[in-house]
Amino acid sequence: MKQTAAIIGGGVIGGGWAARFLLMGWDVRIFDPDPEAERKIGEVLDNARRSMRGLFDVPVPAEGNLSFHDTMSDAVAGAVWIQESVPERLELKRKVYQTLQEHCDPDAIIGSSTSGFKPSELQGCASRPGQIVVTHPFNPVYLLPLIELVGTDANAPELIERAKLLLGEVGFYPLHVKKEIDAHIADRFLEAVWREALWLIRDGIATTEEIDDAIRFGFGLRWAQMGLFETYRVAGGEAGMEHFIAQFGPALAWPWTKLMDVPELTDELVAKIADQSDAQSGAYSIRELERIRDDNLVTILRGLKARDWGAGRILNAWDEAHRPDIPDLAVARPLTTAHMTIPLDWTDYNGHMNEARYLQMFGDATDLVMAWIGCDADYIAAGNSYFTAETHIRHIDEVRAGTEVHCRTTCLAGAGKKLHLFHEMYDGERLLATGEHMLIHVNLETRRAAEPLPEVATRLDVLSGAHADLPRPEGAGRAVGVR
Amino acid sequence: MKQTAAIIGGGVIGGGWAARFLLMGWDVRIFDPDPEAERKIGEVLDNARRSMRGLFDVPVPAEGNLSFHDTMSDAVAGAVWIQESVPERLELKRKVYQTLQEHCDPDAIIGSSTSGFKPSELQGCASRPGQIVVTHPFNPVYLLPLIELVGTDANAPELIERAKLLLGEVGFYPLHVKKEIDAHIADRFLEAVWREALWLIRDGIATTEEIDDAIRFGFGLRWAQMGLFETYRVAGGEAGMEHFIAQFGPALAWPWTKLMDVPELTDELVAKIADQSDAQSGAYSIRELERIRDDNLVTILRGLKARDWGAGRILNAWDEAHRPDIPDLAVARPLTTAHMTIPLDWTDYNGHMNEARYLQMFGDATDLVMAWIGCDADYIAAGNSYFTAETHIRHIDEVRAGTEVHCRTTCLAGAGKKLHLFHEMYDGERLLATGEHMLIHVNLETRRAAEPLPEVATRLDVLSGAHADLPRPEGAGRAVGVR
Repeated sequence: MKQTAAIIGGGVIGGGWAARFLLMGWDVRIFDPDPEAERKIGEVLDNARRSMRGLFDVPVPAEGNLSFHDTMSDAVAGAVWIQESVPERLELKRKVYQTLQEHCDPDAIIGSSTSGFKPSELQGCASRPGQIVVTHPFNPVYLLPLIELVGTDANAPELIERAKLLLGEVGFYPLHVKKEIDAHIADRFLEAVWREALWLIRDGIATTEEIDDAIRFGFGLRWAQMGLFETYRVAGGEAGMEHFIAQFGPALAWPWTKLMDVPELTDELVAKIADQSDAQSGAYSIRELERIRDDNLVTILRGLKARDWGAGRILNAWDEAHRPDIPDLAVARPLTTAHMTIPLDWTDYNGHMNEARYLQMFGDATDLVMAWIGCDADYIAAGNSYFTAETHIRHIDEVRAGTEVHCRTTCLAGAGKKLHLFHEMYDGERLLATGEHMLIHVNLETRRAAEPLPEVATRLDVLSGAHADLPRPEGAGRAVGVR
Repeated sequence: MKQTAAIIGGGVIGGGWAARFLLMGWDVRIFDPDPEAERKIGEVLDNARRSMRGLFDVPVPAEGNLSFHDTMSDAVAGAVWIQESVPERLELKRKVYQTLQEHCDPDAIIGSSTSGFKPSELQGCASRPGQIVVTHPFNPVYLLPLIELVGTDANAPELIERAKLLLGEVGFYPLHVKKEIDAHIADRFLEAVWREALWLIRDGIATTEEIDDAIRFGFGLRWAQMGLFETYRVAGGEAGMEHFIAQFGPALAWPWTKLMDVPELTDELVAKIADQSDAQSGAYSIRELERIRDDNLVTILRGLKARDWGAGRILNAWDEAHRPDIPDLAVARPLTTAHMTIPLDWTDYNGHMNEARYLQMFGDATDLVMAWIGCDADYIAAGNSYFTAETHIRHIDEVRAGTEVHCRTTCLAGAGKKLHLFHEMYDGERLLATGEHMLIHVNLETRRAAEPLPEVATRLDVLSGAHADLPRPEGAGRAVGVR
């Protein structure tokens, strides 16, 4: 059944909430007195539309209806969820709740996006305090799953459960914070790091860029998948969490940060942490956690590599500095093209390289041939390229992560708009797979077939001429199921 | 030319250094008095061997020679890099340097893995202080690129440059910290967060697991790719960094963390941050940075989804709860199989979906058919599965990220060990591509063809029978380049 959310206060955060509900099929009613609200929320929605649905591998509900309203009373009509994202001023928020509660369904949930206020503060002057909870999101709200859900004794357990259910339905992960505190959990860490970062900049130790690099090339990659304690549990090794804390405990008295208000590390506190860590991660051995961590890190690093960003850009720079020389197209036959080690994240439930990764590697081999005949990044940026029209893959033998493989490539034909390649993938002399590919040269403006520019046509002639008298590779020209 | 590194002190960190050098082709000589050192370092090496080389897409040098030595004097023979990773006791480290400097090449670089000590402290009693620098790595050392490189005026600029070069050669990113400070940069943040986390656990606000979830489902994902300041620059929007700081500045006086020793937010400090942020990120507009951030987040989230871990597990749970019902195999023809929105990270330099992602989606469609005939996760865990033997893909029309697509699947034949499927990928009624696949049922123990178990054979009969009189899809049975 279609449901309705009211968004009180647009901006980056309110707009993110609107996008999350709308793209999950809810109707969304917005109140924001800012005359620019519609434009601003439209910009957030543009970003959400291009990114959010592609997170899922199943059909997502059709987009709901979006409407803008001049009054809060109008905006909350029919809403089962009301999300308040007005500026961080307690008196303003309390006034908003008074107006909302005069008009909204008494069973609706009023969530506040507040970064800092405790729910008891928000509920203070409300006519129905039990209706109000903290639901603190993280920007971009349409992609990041975390919601800190904080209530008080005034909230019925049923309401908390219903809030969790509705938040989960639109793809969030509601983290129920059991005991209220200023700034909840995550923003307390952000604030601590922010304070330390201000010291480092003020004292001329580091720049903003150096600080960001110190985060994103190191512990930021760990935190994206395991957080703080599970990371330390793994680092501590088989000796366990208590040993780890004992080792790093003394640093609490050292000036390792300017923030010196530290708790006493009593035996009781150490045992509490160790017990909680066992409950959290004890299902896995340290060795298993190490491998899960490494699988995740390789996945994230290779993902960033494909985007040429952050730590991935470092890997690309290393590759560039160590790329083999371009072969002499008139002499080398067949060409040795892609040459690499099968990454951890390329394997699947059958324990071997997933079929799509064969095509990824053949595609990389094709890209190298394209670059060698002059269809490189500049040529493509100028509006010319090759598109693959057709592909035939035969799987001859299995291969697992960690194996060094290479492709030998024969140009079966290359003239005019057509480029017909045959890749053979080997582990040493063990043939793993073959890939036959028909590519068509295109104009990227018209997206249609077009003759290659002379510099490419010339080199393609050299390549196809050099390969013309090579024996036709076994398996070329085959159809599926035909011998 | 092959180079040699000496590793003084094994363990998780020393072992990580050993792995990094060794797998990049260096000879590695280890000194560690721990009788268990060889076993412990062997375990780190096992982890490194399965994960590290697959980060690169070019050939990596052949592994160097590893040797263990009983004395430091023996270990440093021929070493151009000496990495010290002994326990964090200043007197111990100073004694180690005295011994090292009696025997090592005076031109070798001695790097210390110290988390906390300043290089001036390490150099204190050394006979050649200029030879010693801090090179602080992050666990796992064989995957994470960050090295904090810290020197003093005693270090010649030439030595710092040489250190950068050698670290870069083995794949690290050396972050040169220009002014020494306790715990360098990253560990100061880790220490601040650790102190705040101890408070939260001591006061019963959150458990270790809740803290980790608050990190890895929210800001941890942001930090993995942009860090702190670039993230805030984007969040601040077009109003700019100064506006952002003005908005959040007052929180410095609030109890948003227990760590209250904060610097004064002067106009000068605000301007310094804004200027540094411009220098760091000013090449991109806020809108561009938003999209880069979202591209990265989608990539990381979908990567974790493939690993079924962290934030990716939340996405998988949503998919499972929203998966369409299993169709009646006797009635539905063709089957509607894969159905999803093309993710942002599936496109390539030609601006459309990359060819390997077609096969990924066809592979997902095949997985659904397998599951529907009973070859599901349990069946596979019990040692039976299908392997793809052969694939033929035709690209009919282009498709871009954000488009909702689905596959219609015909079973061309299914009997005995063979399963012959034909997928057609559509955007609405627009045909994008076809995929023809021959799969062979296998025993996962022998890795050889085997008859399916009766429950699968029976359902396969139903499916192939229902599709037997469907018209043969256009394009089935084709070979590359043949009409």
